[in-house]
Amino acid sequence: MDFNTSTLKDFEEAHDRIRNHIHRTPILTNATINEMAGCSISFKCENFQKVGAFKARGGMNAILGLSDADKQKGVATHSSGNHAQAVALAAKVAGIKAWIVMPSNAPKVKKDAVKGYGAEVIECEPTIDAREDTLNAVIQENGALLIHPYNDERIIIGQGTATKELIEDAEKDFDYILTPIGGGGLISGAALVSHYLSPNTKVIGGEPEAADDAYRSFKSGQLVKNDGPPKTIADGLLTNLGDKNFEVIKKYVHDIYLVNDAEIMVALRLVWERMKIIIEPSCAVPLAVVLKNKSVFENKNVGIVLSGGNVDLGKIKFD
Amino acid sequence: MDFNTSTLKDFEEAHDRIRNHIHRTPILTNATINEMAGCSISFKCENFQKVGAFKARGGMNAILGLSDADKQKGVATHSSGNHAQAVALAAKVAGIKAWIVMPSNAPKVKKDAVKGYGAEVIECEPTIDAREDTLNAVIQENGALLIHPYNDERIIIGQGTATKELIEDAEKDFDYILTPIGGGGLISGAALVSHYLSPNTKVIGGEPEAADDAYRSFKSGQLVKNDGPPKTIADGLLTNLGDKNFEVIKKYVHDIYLVNDAEIMVALRLVWERMKIIIEPSCAVPLAVVLKNKSVFENKNVGIVLSGGNVDLGKIKFD
Repeated sequence: MDFNTSTLKDFEEAHDRIRNHIHRTPILTNATINEMAGCSISFKCENFQKVGAFKARGGMNAILGLSDADKQKGVATHSSGNHAQAVALAAKVAGIKAWIVMPSNAPKVKKDAVKGYGAEVIECEPTIDAREDTLNAVIQENGALLIHPYNDERIIIGQGTATKELIEDAEKDFDYILTPIGGGGLISGAALVSHYLSPNTKVIGGEPEAADDAYRSFKSGQLVKNDGPPKTIADGLLTNLGDKNFEVIKKYVHDIYLVNDAEIMVALRLVWERMKIIIEPSCAVPLAVVLKNKSVFENKNVGIVLSGGNVDLGKIKFD
Repeated sequence: MDFNTSTLKDFEEAHDRIRNHIHRTPILTNATINEMAGCSISFKCENFQKVGAFKARGGMNAILGLSDADKQKGVATHSSGNHAQAVALAAKVAGIKAWIVMPSNAPKVKKDAVKGYGAEVIECEPTIDAREDTLNAVIQENGALLIHPYNDERIIIGQGTATKELIEDAEKDFDYILTPIGGGGLISGAALVSHYLSPNTKVIGGEPEAADDAYRSFKSGQLVKNDGPPKTIADGLLTNLGDKNFEVIKKYVHDIYLVNDAEIMVALRLVWERMKIIIEPSCAVPLAVVLKNKSVFENKNVGIVLSGGNVDLGKIKFD
């Protein structure tokens, strides 16, 4: 698929493909947070999505869209987290084989969840090189098809269905829609589908200061990477931007804002305390952006995709 | 009102009175928790209720049901937490004056919330004696009417509307409905309304071992108190049972089970991690009861009233 020729129909087909296998998650609002932010925010709750994150959408779209011949080959990926569960769940729904390469230090509960869906877990050393080498070996040995977590049109279109639902269900015209940026799958899907469904909506990305590769790429027009492994509480956003994602972001995203870990934790605590829902730190980034840039969003209709709720509670400490 | 002559009509009138001023909170289910518990659980999410707890219902019913002459007098109560906010909110809705006695060590955020509803906060020393003395002085000086947090028919009927909605909305026949027990307002309302709407449902209370006055009262048939101030993570359940609540519990509650703080924290963590919603420790007690007594609830339809989500995040530590 070429994004220059993609249409709304691609999103509609993806949505029809996955509709019965994902949750149409609720949209929540909170009067206190609106008052604090000075705008009207609709939160699309993908923390309540299957596997606890929007990733279920992309994995489901990529795998259910395979030809019967390709399904026979099975699928493979490497992931320490949500994408692993998304691929395992989608493979289970499709009734096909899945090999998931996971770092040996991934939490046992996550490995067990992947195994619980019937996928085969292959452990490797916890480095990017070991993960990629092991994945390549698995693909070579089994002939499985790679399901990349974000740098893949089928994934981008699948993740975009979250924003499609937000626009369809909120019954208002959004001035802004915000998502976090890691590899770029969520925001590129959001920007594309908004372009078709709600062309006056500006799509904005939020990124942690310590993992600002998308920000620097966007501002310079050249795809750059993070310097070394980034350190931020937003551990779902450590990945470097994919080139396919960057192509969409350059063309359809309005702007990218940075926030630091302290700002992320203020936003996270606000959502936990006021909305009584669990979101992961990565997921708090867009609200942190809104709270930090009140003049930009003042009195506007703002949509935020709450990306996920898979948090290691032992690592979250409040004063 | 005499509970021996109360009818379903009392609950219907209360529900009509408060309906437009409270949330009809959602009922959530979770496949993983059902599998772990070995039964089918419907969670009535009063953590999403106004003021973050079911207490909004009782306060609203008591205050909106006052005669015009009584409304002129204003209302008063003492509370360090949810009931304070419930009375303040209801007084605001009714457009009447409220005096709330709060211990000086109550969190500033809670005092501010009460003041935010327009109620007058009177601070006192953080002892039960000081709270009661101060409240009596406030009532004497202003002629305000006492709104007791649980030992009051109007409060009991109001809290019962949470269980009424659970029974009406769940579209299943419950074998069991469980609530936590503190002063007894929530469970006595639940037991009464279940008796009318779903007479085959057994209503069960959950109580922390360290604050087991309701358990001992229920088992002995004699109303007894906790020995000294109880120490448990379930800080919403420290109160001694009211005599009016005990009257209902003796007659309509099926049984009371005890759980310890470790069991409460396992249940709380399960709800946070799997359902992605914030509940307070007191609120986790009924699920802890179900997980501890699997043979009792095996393959049954179980309703649990999630009582509230007002948690001091700084006090919650996970491994």
